[in-house]
Amino acid sequence: MIPVRILGTASVLPGPPVTTAELCARVGRDAAEVERKTGIRTRHFAPAGTRAADLGAQALRGALEAAGLEATALRRILFVSSMGGDVLTPANGSRVAAALGLSGTCDAMDVTNACMGFLSAFDLAARSVATGLGPVGVVSVELLSRTTRPEDPRPWLVLGDAAAAVVLGAARTAQSGLGGGLGGGLGDGGLGLGLGFGDGVLGAAFGNDGTLPPDVVLENPLMTGEPGGMRFLTPSRDMTRVALGALTRAATAVLTEAGLTVADVDWVLTHQPNGSMFTAILQALEVPAQKSVTVVDTVGSVGSASLGTGLDRLWRTRPVKPGDRVLMVGVGAGVAHGAVLYQVGG
Amino acid sequence: MIPVRILGTASVLPGPPVTTAELCARVGRDAAEVERKTGIRTRHFAPAGTRAADLGAQALRGALEAAGLEATALRRILFVSSMGGDVLTPANGSRVAAALGLSGTCDAMDVTNACMGFLSAFDLAARSVATGLGPVGVVSVELLSRTTRPEDPRPWLVLGDAAAAVVLGAARTAQSGLGGGLGGGLGDGGLGLGLGFGDGVLGAAFGNDGTLPPDVVLENPLMTGEPGGMRFLTPSRDMTRVALGALTRAATAVLTEAGLTVADVDWVLTHQPNGSMFTAILQALEVPAQKSVTVVDTVGSVGSASLGTGLDRLWRTRPVKPGDRVLMVGVGAGVAHGAVLYQVGG
Repeated sequence: MIPVRILGTASVLPGPPVTTAELCARVGRDAAEVERKTGIRTRHFAPAGTRAADLGAQALRGALEAAGLEATALRRILFVSSMGGDVLTPANGSRVAAALGLSGTCDAMDVTNACMGFLSAFDLAARSVATGLGPVGVVSVELLSRTTRPEDPRPWLVLGDAAAAVVLGAARTAQSGLGGGLGGGLGDGGLGLGLGFGDGVLGAAFGNDGTLPPDVVLENPLMTGEPGGMRFLTPSRDMTRVALGALTRAATAVLTEAGLTVADVDWVLTHQPNGSMFTAILQALEVPAQKSVTVVDTVGSVGSASLGTGLDRLWRTRPVKPGDRVLMVGVGAGVAHGAVLYQVGG
Repeated sequence: MIPVRILGTASVLPGPPVTTAELCARVGRDAAEVERKTGIRTRHFAPAGTRAADLGAQALRGALEAAGLEATALRRILFVSSMGGDVLTPANGSRVAAALGLSGTCDAMDVTNACMGFLSAFDLAARSVATGLGPVGVVSVELLSRTTRPEDPRPWLVLGDAAAAVVLGAARTAQSGLGGGLGGGLGDGGLGLGLGFGDGVLGAAFGNDGTLPPDVVLENPLMTGEPGGMRFLTPSRDMTRVALGALTRAATAVLTEAGLTVADVDWVLTHQPNGSMFTAILQALEVPAQKSVTVVDTVGSVGSASLGTGLDRLWRTRPVKPGDRVLMVGVGAGVAHGAVLYQVGG
């Protein structure tokens, strides 16, 4: 087990909701059909001039409040985006830190792994905390509306803007050593002193497979000399098939590592690129809908912020209790895929 | 100590060297004066069509060869750049993995922290290895020539293209636990079974201070709608003063944490944005030149690849031996700064 604790979460949706009906009216599409195919009723497009760093700071501030921490408690900020944020240099995380009033009390960097970015950064944050560098704030900011245009309706009709944050800190396992130590070893459930359940990651499995056909691509305009945009290169059916295979393998790997089955898991969060893929993921994992949290219907496809938004919704609206196991499953362009099994201590 | 071992390094300079004299002739500048001010005689500009992922794969392949490892041994690839690489989605690391023939045997993601990116990723990699996920490949690729133009000569005359990689793996401390375990605790020098010196990071200190005036900025063209380029916003003198203050504090912090002084350090690697700043850094740290490795004179200012290139040069050309302590000091836009003190085991 990697001893680490989720201290707080938050999410932000910039600007008023934009309905699928409004967008479809602009491009002469049947709104009912698009809603049925995508499972998306509304999404948010950030107002012109919105800075990714400010949205990130708002989300991270919310997660710090939920954690009961001052921003100065942070030792590291991981800023996640699949569209580059405001700047390619410096790290957007530097600007998030500055917006929180921090001047050198923590480091900050950007982490990118398409829609898997949040879960990848969650893993990096957990390993930082477990080796003594925490608390760590992970904040995902997607201004995907900056990468789409009505002329290419497939991305434009599904992508939205959002930010989501989580703050990870030391587990309450009362072990000695670095930042709470490395618990009692792998797979022991992390029983700590005085706790029924230790906080931490029971298993994690990740992989990227760039040999598969490119599915979603956003070129770097500095390399192409053109502004460009997010492009969907493979049919939805192929994307779904590849995604399901990848994330089922990842979920199976972490459950096997922890000696558990999906029936032992209390909550399942998945990346939600659209409603039908979300449903297909839950079916493939044999997870009943009430163990998950739907966000795609109201926020749209928000890239790396999807899992973070779901985590925040879970933390704030469901009766998560000590001993609960939360399986987070992600997939994204790359093809990136992975799963993290987190146990709530207490 | 964070138990981790440098298994291999490599660096790549794309295309033939371009002399300062050639560039100065193009814009009517005095080459002798520019060489004196920048300390740069040559740099490399990658040929048109060069892909960042291919350069990264070449560097990482070299580091794997030096480590005696197959690419399939890797569990994680961290791709570092301050200019976004080829794509903003998916992770460039996915493409590096694909170029190495990997299909899902490791994950991959991009890490950005301006010129500090390599050292930030080194730290993330070390913590991944120490918690059981290794070996990890860190590869920095900078195609900074894609961000400059002769009309803005200050960046154009100093920035160059380069790639550098390091592979980190489990320390030879023969401790039980996760991936070699967390050694014998902080500050014990990590003495392992049968080894005079344990491999690992004796101390690390990092910070980003976004409240300082912006120094170097590369806007995201997707946010501005313009291709843009790397801009130097503050005078060299101010950059040097801020950088020296930041990295001196970081170096002092890690030495204090390890209970050592700079005299106990055998090798010092620093970010080398230009010759005079490199000299000033060594003077500020009171390090004799023979304890360091100069790269800026022949490779130019290569962003996050500067420290990696220096590390590779040190590993390949100097008599680094068991027990040696290597201080790596970085600074970059953000203002990002940090230091890592690594001990060579054996």
